[in-house]
Amino acid sequence: MQVPEAVRWADGGDAIDLLDQTELPEAETRLRITSADAMAEAIRALRVRGAPAIGIAAAMAFAFEAARHARLERGEFLERLAATRALLLAARPTAVNLAWALDRLDRLVGSLSDAPNGVVACKLWGEATAILEEDRAMCRAIGEHGLALVPDGTRVLTHCNAGALATGGIGTALAPLYLAHERGRALHVFVDETRPLLQGSRLTAWELGRAGIPVTLVTDSAAAVLMAQRRIDLVLVGADRIAANGDVANKVGTYGLAVLARYHQVPFYVAAPCSTLDAFTPTGAGIPIEERAADEIRRGFGRLTAPADVAVFAPAFDVTPAALISGILTDRGVLEPPFVDGVARLTTTAPDVVA
Amino acid sequence: MQVPEAVRWADGGDAIDLLDQTELPEAETRLRITSADAMAEAIRALRVRGAPAIGIAAAMAFAFEAARHARLERGEFLERLAATRALLLAARPTAVNLAWALDRLDRLVGSLSDAPNGVVACKLWGEATAILEEDRAMCRAIGEHGLALVPDGTRVLTHCNAGALATGGIGTALAPLYLAHERGRALHVFVDETRPLLQGSRLTAWELGRAGIPVTLVTDSAAAVLMAQRRIDLVLVGADRIAANGDVANKVGTYGLAVLARYHQVPFYVAAPCSTLDAFTPTGAGIPIEERAADEIRRGFGRLTAPADVAVFAPAFDVTPAALISGILTDRGVLEPPFVDGVARLTTTAPDVVA
Repeated sequence: MQVPEAVRWADGGDAIDLLDQTELPEAETRLRITSADAMAEAIRALRVRGAPAIGIAAAMAFAFEAARHARLERGEFLERLAATRALLLAARPTAVNLAWALDRLDRLVGSLSDAPNGVVACKLWGEATAILEEDRAMCRAIGEHGLALVPDGTRVLTHCNAGALATGGIGTALAPLYLAHERGRALHVFVDETRPLLQGSRLTAWELGRAGIPVTLVTDSAAAVLMAQRRIDLVLVGADRIAANGDVANKVGTYGLAVLARYHQVPFYVAAPCSTLDAFTPTGAGIPIEERAADEIRRGFGRLTAPADVAVFAPAFDVTPAALISGILTDRGVLEPPFVDGVARLTTTAPDVVA
Repeated sequence: MQVPEAVRWADGGDAIDLLDQTELPEAETRLRITSADAMAEAIRALRVRGAPAIGIAAAMAFAFEAARHARLERGEFLERLAATRALLLAARPTAVNLAWALDRLDRLVGSLSDAPNGVVACKLWGEATAILEEDRAMCRAIGEHGLALVPDGTRVLTHCNAGALATGGIGTALAPLYLAHERGRALHVFVDETRPLLQGSRLTAWELGRAGIPVTLVTDSAAAVLMAQRRIDLVLVGADRIAANGDVANKVGTYGLAVLARYHQVPFYVAAPCSTLDAFTPTGAGIPIEERAADEIRRGFGRLTAPADVAVFAPAFDVTPAALISGILTDRGVLEPPFVDGVARLTTTAPDVVA
């Protein structure tokens, strides 16, 4: 099974190998990144996206930069690391995983004040690799726990991209689908194109198709027709943040799908790592929702497709109330409603937002 | 109030003046059409669209062509008219209104076998003008009957374009909004962009904005968020065909909106001329649903935004069951559920499909 790797070490660690997602689906271009500058550019330009993948890529670039400058005098070395951290953080200021991964490496540097630069660099390399490996394991664990949801012949609807391209491994919402496919189960995945940025058509349809899983693309508003025609057995989506009561913030369009799934009695599951659980935010009402630029909708395909000055309401995410969710699939098992005890039990201290 | 006219006579009938809708919203270009060839090209290229507007435009072009050739010998004159009819019909074979309007003119020609060519041409000009005027009156009647639905301060959600650009007058679903605005009522209209062809963002947002009605554009999947935030008082859409039991075929996305409206307890109304009522089709299950070309989704607006060979499910329309519809607004009054008696009473013999 060919699952794309968004980011990985190349040449035994001498470079970072990144799939340029801005070229998808037209071309599959892999970049060889050998500096934090180049990685910051790649993050800014969305060549790598999806919060876990961004966190991993930044950690790898930070470690790489440490190795490159290990021969500097200690003060200069630490200054260099601080500048690298600031550069990478500024590349995508709202990506919580980016800060989380860089903080983790920064704490490691702080704990190694007596070690030579070379040892620090080596340990950073190990830590960045650990972040990648942990993410891979997390994806696989979500997939294993979710396998029971996708028996042979399941027809799944998904939205946006919660797949391999967003993580270090086989994705979150897509992980059970990859594992079911790997075990020979027949699947059919309907993919919402996901306006305005079309992550469904550009990314999800591409990565599932590449793995040999049958895919049908639909516009977001055709999902209701599929459900009415009883062609969907399961809706499975990712999550950006999950509140203490189980309310889920995810890509705009998720809430409408949850309402439609309830109306058509289709199970609606959310897949996310435990790091997405946030027991400190009581309900979805407390989750801030970023608004996107109006021109992502007015000029979505390069040319003007709406009056140039028309007002636009463009929330990046929406909130699906826990009452509409059949279950939350995590790397530590499946939570069932009511979610409040499960979320409290599994909440980790490192909030991890999948953008 | 500035409501655009999709098609009208120019120079006292010496030309047809057409708004080129393919240039919207970037430019407002009006074409001066003086031959059936030019009109057939305009219909083929979607410079004029919306079934009523297409029917009117074709009728005007047919009448125009008759006047241009009135000096021919009778046999040649009739041959010329037959060729013109075939040319215009072939420009958009599935547009029912096109056939309906041309049949009406053809019957008139048949009834005037003793009249000189000049008289035939003159009567055809009058009949084409009558088709335009009847459509204008129909739009206004829908608007008048719908005024009670839009009191001062109403926040309306609409989908696709059932406006002036699709008709000879002030539209169907948009007619009550234009009349309410004309009477000084405050309105706010939220417009779904309406993938794949973006009639909402390209056409509806443009024509309402031009008339001075406040508009906010949203992606189709953000409509649910507006309803959850209680920002929508009324959903008002057009119809392509209405079955005997009140099931409504309309642009894909309408059905999902109806489910969302029911869930959020928002009234959901359909506006259409009586010619759209079809008492001879018992339920929506009997309405054929055209599938659109996959590349309208894979290559929306020029560039490839999905894997080039991915399967696509692209119904042009969907069917909203009567049970989800609060009322059907026609030019002869508002029908309330159950619709079966009202549809039977108001069904006309000329099916009139607003595409």
